[in-house]
Amino acid sequence: MGIFNVDLKKVVDDSYEIEIGFGLEDKLISDLKNGLVGDITKFAVITDSIVKKLYADLILSKLTEAGYSANLFVFEAGEKQKTRRTKEIIEDTMLEKGYRRDCCIIAVGGGVVTDLAGFVAGTFGRGVPFINYATTLLAAADASVGGKTAVDTPLATNLIGLFHQPQRVYLDIATWKTLPKRQISSGMAETIKHACIASRDFFDYLDIHMNEILQIDKEKCEYIANENCKIKYQVVMKDERENGLREVLNLGHTVGRAIETVSQYKLLHGEALSIGIVAEVKLANKLGYMSEKERDEVIEVLKKANLPTAIPEYIDREELVRKLYTDKKVKNGTLRFVLQKGIGGVVEFQSGVFATPIAENIAREIIMDM
Amino acid sequence: MGIFNVDLKKVVDDSYEIEIGFGLEDKLISDLKNGLVGDITKFAVITDSIVKKLYADLILSKLTEAGYSANLFVFEAGEKQKTRRTKEIIEDTMLEKGYRRDCCIIAVGGGVVTDLAGFVAGTFGRGVPFINYATTLLAAADASVGGKTAVDTPLATNLIGLFHQPQRVYLDIATWKTLPKRQISSGMAETIKHACIASRDFFDYLDIHMNEILQIDKEKCEYIANENCKIKYQVVMKDERENGLREVLNLGHTVGRAIETVSQYKLLHGEALSIGIVAEVKLANKLGYMSEKERDEVIEVLKKANLPTAIPEYIDREELVRKLYTDKKVKNGTLRFVLQKGIGGVVEFQSGVFATPIAENIAREIIMDM
Repeated sequence: MGIFNVDLKKVVDDSYEIEIGFGLEDKLISDLKNGLVGDITKFAVITDSIVKKLYADLILSKLTEAGYSANLFVFEAGEKQKTRRTKEIIEDTMLEKGYRRDCCIIAVGGGVVTDLAGFVAGTFGRGVPFINYATTLLAAADASVGGKTAVDTPLATNLIGLFHQPQRVYLDIATWKTLPKRQISSGMAETIKHACIASRDFFDYLDIHMNEILQIDKEKCEYIANENCKIKYQVVMKDERENGLREVLNLGHTVGRAIETVSQYKLLHGEALSIGIVAEVKLANKLGYMSEKERDEVIEVLKKANLPTAIPEYIDREELVRKLYTDKKVKNGTLRFVLQKGIGGVVEFQSGVFATPIAENIAREIIMDM
Repeated sequence: MGIFNVDLKKVVDDSYEIEIGFGLEDKLISDLKNGLVGDITKFAVITDSIVKKLYADLILSKLTEAGYSANLFVFEAGEKQKTRRTKEIIEDTMLEKGYRRDCCIIAVGGGVVTDLAGFVAGTFGRGVPFINYATTLLAAADASVGGKTAVDTPLATNLIGLFHQPQRVYLDIATWKTLPKRQISSGMAETIKHACIASRDFFDYLDIHMNEILQIDKEKCEYIANENCKIKYQVVMKDERENGLREVLNLGHTVGRAIETVSQYKLLHGEALSIGIVAEVKLANKLGYMSEKERDEVIEVLKKANLPTAIPEYIDREELVRKLYTDKKVKNGTLRFVLQKGIGGVVEFQSGVFATPIAENIAREIIMDM
């Protein structure tokens, strides 16, 4: 009988840069030429059926022109495709085409593409380098900082995945111009959430400039892309593995994620989140953490962004309440919520604890009232 | 246009202990009581259909008696089940049974179970704690140090997976007594490989004591379990992400993995590896890195362990040559081999480079001759 000690303490540097700008395809190529991923010459460009034509085809041809070996891996657009099955098909196709560990994956697309492609990169050959070329506001707000990757399962969203930091992120704001209006609004939900948890000033900026932002004003959009990174980074930096503080990013997601699933993805992520934020500000107001005025200000900004603020008629409220229990914040069978404190802050329930148990009947009451 | 820096440099401590002994079920429970995985009270015990009856049922009942919530997740024994499909079924069943991020996975079994369960643990809720209760010699030699987890795909073994370090590993040598003789021999292949790459003394120990080891002599087996950990750790410690030195652990695996796949897993991993080691010592001898005497000594020890040392008749040699290209050491379409230098060492081709390009016709010649 004996004990063998495996000492694996070490310094890890997963730092990377986020490039924010208009039309970054050539910057990506020149970064590769300058050794962004070392001597790798083989690239798998993962994208969806919509972004393929808009940007991925262009990036592929630029890679090929530059002398790299590259292939496109395209799946049908939509959150419904963010599954283990799609991941498996991409993996098998990569293996068939001779991809091994000496490759780099480039995700070109929105949050669905970057979540899925990042997960593929994290487990292909036990992890290959990964570049994130984000083409949506949502991806800029949500998927560019944090290293979270995941797929959905029949029972819940984002519960199977891993943390895999990219080598570099490109937030190409020019691409937002090709987004459908509904997608831009959806992306604004995460941006508004960031303002709600971290900055009254940013909240006011969004309130004042919402129209210009929705029109993709260059300067305003670069500003919000940068603010999104800053707020998310401040949170992620302090809690990379999501044990405490990082849960504040989950504001609005308890109800939001559940509605997204129950709607069978008829609601976009940001639309579902918007409704989730409304549920949460109502709860925060009910529990005395926000005034009625603050609650209504948040609801007004969501409306300015053309986001839904009520639960659609077709959603079965009881199914929604049951679905709340698939939330990853659930502990020992109890629902837990992140709650806003006024605007620009969150409630710290104990030192380092930012989610609080909420009885099912209180959650139900809020939901039934929407 | 601007750059946002995401600074993620930090100290990570993934250290853990390996407990080596006879009958460690009660030690596992007392370690949990003493806070091995913090305040987690929910356990998923993942095992296969053979180990279930032998050990996992017992561990489950001890967990339940100790007041923990625990369920068994059982899949059919055999490397053929180490697939993304089995992983998916386990995940969905865990989700159905209410498992979320606040759980711990305990793998009870051999290398297939620990590879698969570790992979489940690494991606469930983006990573939950994982305990490895190893019940085979192979798992003791191979799966206990290094944090490698993976599944097989139709095209290649172990190419989809990740690095996920366990909280603790238990090497219960008492369990080896219930292993079929064929499995014990199979496990010896990795042990012999370790001796070949790192220690002439250990090689001689195996040569002298092979019979007692195959009879599961307590003292001899504890010794080899410890030596296996020591050698693997020395290599892994210096190269956790398998960029250079760690490739030496791949000795014999270039041909071994390929035969394992082409045999459609009729050959056990260690049996295939044994044949792969023979191919490699022949190659090393041919290229002048080993004497004929050393080559034959290695083949003799493999025979003493009742391992195969020739390619079975039913293996299509040309298919085998083609399959070599699915090896993860392949770079830019070229086969690469790790080569032994005498007994107890490996060839360092350049500083930090332990695998060398080998022309296909040389590999084919060796294979045709076996």
